[in-house]
Amino acid sequence: MSEDRDLLAVGHTAFDYIIHLDEFPEPNTSTAIKRMRNLHGGAAANVALVGSRLGLRTSLVSAVGGDFEGSEYRELLESSGIDIESMILVADESTPTAFVMTDSDHNQISYFYWGAARYFKDAETPADAIKSARAVHLATGDPSFNCRCGEFARSLGKIISFDPGQDLHMYSRSQLERAVGVCDILFGNHHEIDRICSKLSVDIHGLREMGPGVVVKTYGKEGSIIYSDDVIKIDAIPREAVDPTGAGDSYRAGFMRAYLRGADLKTCGRFASAVASFIVEDEGTQTNIPDTGEAVKRFTAQWGYEPPI
Amino acid sequence: MSEDRDLLAVGHTAFDYIIHLDEFPEPNTSTAIKRMRNLHGGAAANVALVGSRLGLRTSLVSAVGGDFEGSEYRELLESSGIDIESMILVADESTPTAFVMTDSDHNQISYFYWGAARYFKDAETPADAIKSARAVHLATGDPSFNCRCGEFARSLGKIISFDPGQDLHMYSRSQLERAVGVCDILFGNHHEIDRICSKLSVDIHGLREMGPGVVVKTYGKEGSIIYSDDVIKIDAIPREAVDPTGAGDSYRAGFMRAYLRGADLKTCGRFASAVASFIVEDEGTQTNIPDTGEAVKRFTAQWGYEPPI
Repeated sequence: MSEDRDLLAVGHTAFDYIIHLDEFPEPNTSTAIKRMRNLHGGAAANVALVGSRLGLRTSLVSAVGGDFEGSEYRELLESSGIDIESMILVADESTPTAFVMTDSDHNQISYFYWGAARYFKDAETPADAIKSARAVHLATGDPSFNCRCGEFARSLGKIISFDPGQDLHMYSRSQLERAVGVCDILFGNHHEIDRICSKLSVDIHGLREMGPGVVVKTYGKEGSIIYSDDVIKIDAIPREAVDPTGAGDSYRAGFMRAYLRGADLKTCGRFASAVASFIVEDEGTQTNIPDTGEAVKRFTAQWGYEPPI
Repeated sequence: MSEDRDLLAVGHTAFDYIIHLDEFPEPNTSTAIKRMRNLHGGAAANVALVGSRLGLRTSLVSAVGGDFEGSEYRELLESSGIDIESMILVADESTPTAFVMTDSDHNQISYFYWGAARYFKDAETPADAIKSARAVHLATGDPSFNCRCGEFARSLGKIISFDPGQDLHMYSRSQLERAVGVCDILFGNHHEIDRICSKLSVDIHGLREMGPGVVVKTYGKEGSIIYSDDVIKIDAIPREAVDPTGAGDSYRAGFMRAYLRGADLKTCGRFASAVASFIVEDEGTQTNIPDTGEAVKRFTAQWGYEPPI
């Protein structure tokens, strides 16, 4: 089977409800919502969509419900050229849904409904989707499913990146060892990487020895650090941040876009930062996505040279 | 214009998210949702849909968003024969959405997003929809819009029922006087009727003098009381209640179904109770809706005679 896809993203596709209230209500009361936006999200879908806008041929495997069929979201992914043939459809369930509620003091409460994603663990390993991709990105989602996909991709010599994100707490130690053991690049924010190290009783050096030649630790506005044979500090590009949600996923997509074109790790990190700097400028994880030209322009303005991507 | 509709319902059409959690999370934490159902709701739509299942030719005027177009909900209403031609579409807004969250101790928090319903007040009075209906039911929704519709319907000699429901608090005193002044039947649960009386500084007798010849005060499982020239006590039909949400709206639909066929008020109240007794048997406001035969059968089993409807 030919590799007609650059990057397969495995993990959540979700409907995101971004909700603004004056204050969180007490039990047995009701409250009016001031502002609400129904946005498209899910870490794997974010990576696949941003990647496709950056010129990668991407594909996506998520578990979605009957409400995904005929939805605008499905239309968006298809019209962006993303191969969603191997999506897992659970017709009588809902697509994973996140409700992120913010009060007037910027406190947040988020509710997450797994819905169809509860069926990842019973689903077959998407062999065709993995075979036809050059690289596989394991995002948030079911640990057992992600491990199976990672091990199958490893057996085929694929490039594998892993980013458990907010689902890190669901990994047993052995599942974490399996997933970390098969990946080439491990992404995490600084809390997550520290938690992975402590869960596996290793430091960054030991973590790299277990599998990933590259560990990318992100620090939001403070930039990121890439651990490979060198330790490379990458600055974030300072922008007026409207909503940081989704910056991480777009960083991963930008990083893989440069990595798969053979760029050096510093350029990968800087290009990733350039892409992420657009996402924070609007609410939602898939709004204000740059194309390659826009990201290259911002990269060049920041670092004074055009990225070789 | 001929009256090709029995009953026009004016007010909310809404998407309802029925969400079950272990416990309500503290600010700045997140929680997993155990069970979630995306159901169809909104008091006016509930009345129109239950009414249509009971054989009434109904129509519906609500303010909905772009997400209503092409939705299953729109398909359901149309396939039920409900005339939705006069719906107010606000394409770049969301349809009103309710999030009803219940914890394991059955405490509830509900969030309501008005979305498109904020545009009721700028919308034209749906003259054609009112002309072509024999009766108009003013449900939850915008006070000023409801008053305009009520006054126009009164000018045409229509039968008018009014049930402000959870939006009662939005009515100024003068708006409440206008709406109560034009209606023939006023519905409310016992809290709402008491609040209307206190807001208008009248008792039930005084309330009836202001307009509605019939005031129906519902008491959930305890049944209802119909105030007309007599005071008629109606028992609820005791059933295993899975979810009381929507029982009130189905009671209104059942009442109007019998009323518009000329039944006496006791029969209207009893038929309304029979219909409502089905809705509580399943989760959501539009699930387990009986047809006329099923409601008549339960009526007959309870009160020993067939309702003349």
